[in-house]
Amino acid sequence: MNLIVMKFGGTSVGNIDNINNVANIVEKESKSNKIIVVLSAMAGVTNQLQDYLESIDSEPSPENDLVLTSGEQVSVGLLSAILKKKGIRSIPLLGWQIPIITDEYHEKAKILNIDKKNIDSYFKKVDVIVLAGFQGINTRGFITSLGRGGSDTTAVAIAAATKAQRCDIYTDVDGVYTCDPRMVSKAKKLEKISYEEMLEFASLGAKVLQTRSIEMAMRHNVIVQVLSSQTGAKGTFLTKEDKKMENELVSGIAYTKDEANITLINILDKPGVAAKIFTPLSKNNINVDMIVQTGSENGKNINFTYTVTRKDLNQAILIMEKNKKNIKFERIITNNSLAKISIIGLGMRTHTGVANKMFSALASENINIHVISTSEIKISVLINEELIKKALKILHTTFGLDSD
Amino acid sequence: MNLIVMKFGGTSVGNIDNINNVANIVEKESKSNKIIVVLSAMAGVTNQLQDYLESIDSEPSPENDLVLTSGEQVSVGLLSAILKKKGIRSIPLLGWQIPIITDEYHEKAKILNIDKKNIDSYFKKVDVIVLAGFQGINTRGFITSLGRGGSDTTAVAIAAATKAQRCDIYTDVDGVYTCDPRMVSKAKKLEKISYEEMLEFASLGAKVLQTRSIEMAMRHNVIVQVLSSQTGAKGTFLTKEDKKMENELVSGIAYTKDEANITLINILDKPGVAAKIFTPLSKNNINVDMIVQTGSENGKNINFTYTVTRKDLNQAILIMEKNKKNIKFERIITNNSLAKISIIGLGMRTHTGVANKMFSALASENINIHVISTSEIKISVLINEELIKKALKILHTTFGLDSD
Repeated sequence: MNLIVMKFGGTSVGNIDNINNVANIVEKESKSNKIIVVLSAMAGVTNQLQDYLESIDSEPSPENDLVLTSGEQVSVGLLSAILKKKGIRSIPLLGWQIPIITDEYHEKAKILNIDKKNIDSYFKKVDVIVLAGFQGINTRGFITSLGRGGSDTTAVAIAAATKAQRCDIYTDVDGVYTCDPRMVSKAKKLEKISYEEMLEFASLGAKVLQTRSIEMAMRHNVIVQVLSSQTGAKGTFLTKEDKKMENELVSGIAYTKDEANITLINILDKPGVAAKIFTPLSKNNINVDMIVQTGSENGKNINFTYTVTRKDLNQAILIMEKNKKNIKFERIITNNSLAKISIIGLGMRTHTGVANKMFSALASENINIHVISTSEIKISVLINEELIKKALKILHTTFGLDSD
Repeated sequence: MNLIVMKFGGTSVGNIDNINNVANIVEKESKSNKIIVVLSAMAGVTNQLQDYLESIDSEPSPENDLVLTSGEQVSVGLLSAILKKKGIRSIPLLGWQIPIITDEYHEKAKILNIDKKNIDSYFKKVDVIVLAGFQGINTRGFITSLGRGGSDTTAVAIAAATKAQRCDIYTDVDGVYTCDPRMVSKAKKLEKISYEEMLEFASLGAKVLQTRSIEMAMRHNVIVQVLSSQTGAKGTFLTKEDKKMENELVSGIAYTKDEANITLINILDKPGVAAKIFTPLSKNNINVDMIVQTGSENGKNINFTYTVTRKDLNQAILIMEKNKKNIKFERIITNNSLAKISIIGLGMRTHTGVANKMFSALASENINIHVISTSEIKISVLINEELIKKALKILHTTFGLDSD
């Protein structure tokens, strides 16, 4: 008999009606498979708990994780009780009962080991294990949590440990799209996407799956399906790349509106200037995304442009001013109404001219590009925010992604 | 160094302000004692969880207890985090982490064993253990709950297991009173009360302490103090009886307004008639409290009166009618506006005339007594509900309980 892991998020278990709906989906799958269901806390619960902790200004600790992991206990108990009422042999389990062993780091623990023997022995007595996501236990015996979206990670990790046939992630969308359907009406659902491409989507803010869970799926070759808990229709499969994927030039287009850039004008170009700029930023936990260095007009100096998220902009400016003498720049220019658009596709590895095609398409709509950055399977450009919809539309058409 | 157990209920940890207040009380005690704090869930949480379970009509099970015990996890984590911020060496623990081993019965588990060695080893590293009340784990590895008010039981059990110097139960009242102060303005707080007397109070609905926790305190000679989490003033001590107590004729007066009685008229008096009446009632989980059998006018037959709680009255009548042929009574008379008043005191064991004094006092106020029942340290009478305040007042004065 096959084993399937099914993960449901907070909205899917947000109230008793929704949990009943989840029970129906699980019931159907359990007719021909052994099932491990991984659940998040009921929607809103973890936020409430986090508010409590913030109000007492508590640092990551055994205490915080004890508080934060209490929500999954409720959803897991309720679903298992409903399954039993349906006559399904089910057991509810918490992270420590498997156990899911993690490292020491509270609120961002990493899974070290999952006891498969224990899972096997449960399956001698039950057909469905309902497992609390997001939590584990460290070797000191304290409950730990895996960080935001940790239930995705639990699901993929347990699928990897049990060599499950599939890991179905049920969400409020029915799959991964070529582009945000709210922005591009002709966006279409992808049947398949490679782990690498999905990682790029996720790191650009497409919140279908947690980055960590995708990395873990990739490492262990776990087949992940993203699908809707409402429709139950076939979703998008995350798999290893295959030939067909490589023939697609571009799989999808992602964007983020959270960009701001800082340009330092007329820096005296000496070795080590980049370190002088970025060391104080990283010390203050400010992430820098795109970086461009250009020669200045006089030929001796350089201009340096980098992007940060908008909420970090003011702090980044302060840090630059504080280090002005050390960095030796003349003045700062900033822009906080920028958007980043990225085209993503395995095909870029083997096909040339993709960037050119992208820039030409944008130029044809008179869209100016501020900064460009590329990776092996992604090209990102920074444009003015108000042009984002126009840019997405022309790129979606240009790369043949429009639905019929 | 002494060990003190401190228990706080749901209202005392109902919000962050209240938990901060609890932390201050614990901080003070921890300066000269090792402390085990036992907490309930934040007020309202367990009711919400119970509502979920009722809405899916779930029976007592591992699932239900998983859901029901999640609330304590939050309060325990929050208090321990606040204590740490105050620089107090504290650790939060759940029932299974001690472990508190219970029997199999979900939602009404009994504590079988508490691992004292583990507690001792925690106290090598910390000064305060913050323990989740109401919960344990059975030998099959499932989390169990101890039933309503189970945190009192946890507190007394842990005090017994660790031979703690004292078990302080913090509540929203500041002790045990000679009578309900809302009914008798001259009621006064008792300094001491014996376990036996407290049991009578509790079984009559004075909800200061759970009956089970009093029985456990009595069995293990745990000194229990009931006191207020608001004032922190010295409360009422539950202890073994001492000479002074026996000299007090009556320690206090309890009442309940939840009474109804049923009288079966003209039963043919044959052996076994009582069984014919009470067997079908107990089969339907209806508890009978007071019972009186009187001869009828014609001398051949008897009348039979018994009391039930008001909510059970209609069902009890139906059961009687259904068994009318078997019991062989002529007709039923019922009354559902009755109250029970009980005087309680160890002194009754050795002093005679207490009952007489009670009946005379009531007669002096023209209060008619419907039914009387007595135990070694308690006399209860059933009177009309509207006379309850008058009756409590005269009895309180008669037995010398009025405050100055």
